[in-house]
Amino acid sequence: MDKNYRFEPELMTDLINSLKRLPGIGIRSARRIAYHLLQHDLKGASILSSSLTKAVENLRNCKGCNGFTEYDLCYICSNQLRDKKLLCIVETPTDQNSLESSHSYKGLYYILMGRVSPLEGIGPKELSFHRVLDRAQDGIVEEVIIATSFTAEGETTAQFLIDMFSNKDIKTTRLARGVPAGSELEYIDTGTIAWALLERKQVG
Amino acid sequence: MDKNYRFEPELMTDLINSLKRLPGIGIRSARRIAYHLLQHDLKGASILSSSLTKAVENLRNCKGCNGFTEYDLCYICSNQLRDKKLLCIVETPTDQNSLESSHSYKGLYYILMGRVSPLEGIGPKELSFHRVLDRAQDGIVEEVIIATSFTAEGETTAQFLIDMFSNKDIKTTRLARGVPAGSELEYIDTGTIAWALLERKQVG
Repeated sequence: MDKNYRFEPELMTDLINSLKRLPGIGIRSARRIAYHLLQHDLKGASILSSSLTKAVENLRNCKGCNGFTEYDLCYICSNQLRDKKLLCIVETPTDQNSLESSHSYKGLYYILMGRVSPLEGIGPKELSFHRVLDRAQDGIVEEVIIATSFTAEGETTAQFLIDMFSNKDIKTTRLARGVPAGSELEYIDTGTIAWALLERKQVG
Repeated sequence: MDKNYRFEPELMTDLINSLKRLPGIGIRSARRIAYHLLQHDLKGASILSSSLTKAVENLRNCKGCNGFTEYDLCYICSNQLRDKKLLCIVETPTDQNSLESSHSYKGLYYILMGRVSPLEGIGPKELSFHRVLDRAQDGIVEEVIIATSFTAEGETTAQFLIDMFSNKDIKTTRLARGVPAGSELEYIDTGTIAWALLERKQVG
């Protein structure tokens, strides 16, 4: 297909281009979404436009956890019932969501908003690791739980964090690696099996 | 994952919900896009918001072809060099793009903005077929070219159009079915081969 649809209205081209900028949206999806909105969901388009504006204007990074919030401190950081002695470091708000959904953690969070990725030029400096350190050294935090992903980049991020906290007087832990709950050994990859063996736990 | 992230800022939830409304975007993509925009592309978010507003406020359906335009008539319909005796009926603006990109059609278009789909409750009435008829009976159009897709729904749409024009004094044609240009017979599906045989053309 020709890329220059010179007969396409300019406003439509603008809209398609700004949709194409979204992660995971290519030119075909962008065009499909644009035409769909204009033909079948004008209300949806207006709602999206206004929620974008409102989010851009009002959301900022929480001073406690670096997550998004309308206020200085997010719901979790300002919740007096949370255990201020625990600080869990995650890569993204989505990871935080997963941990929250497990209903098994009552401490606070710090969200890196990314992971160390040398290939993309993202290092500890780009992720402002010094702010994590400042946050953890508030005199209240006793344990830092590193909950980055168990991928190559997540592991690298974890190692940087472990190094950073190594000579500080703060206990540093990492999420356990092992066989996922509810899964049959038969279907687990060998790498996970190996880790589960290595980190086996005495039970009797 | 729990669906009630009660700790997520309301503005973020609103943004995610309005992104989820887009075709082809599920909850995970919506969340990913929302966090990406807020963390890494605030400018992109503002641009998208404003292009949505501008498109919604200024784009309307062309009085000639039913496509989108900022004016009463779109670029094609107002182009005096186009052949006003030919009217090509397509399902969507994307289909129109494909035809235009072939540089082999110089007539006008009518865009249905959909296809007949009994399962979804979309019939000739929902697609305002009477407007196609009115458009084709302007006294200038001599041939209607039906260029709906060769899918079940496209064929149904074509049949409705053929029936509608059957007792009118307008020549009605349909795009040729056959083996795609540049393709080897070996890799063509049998249905297409069957059609190509049935609609074979005398060449000598």
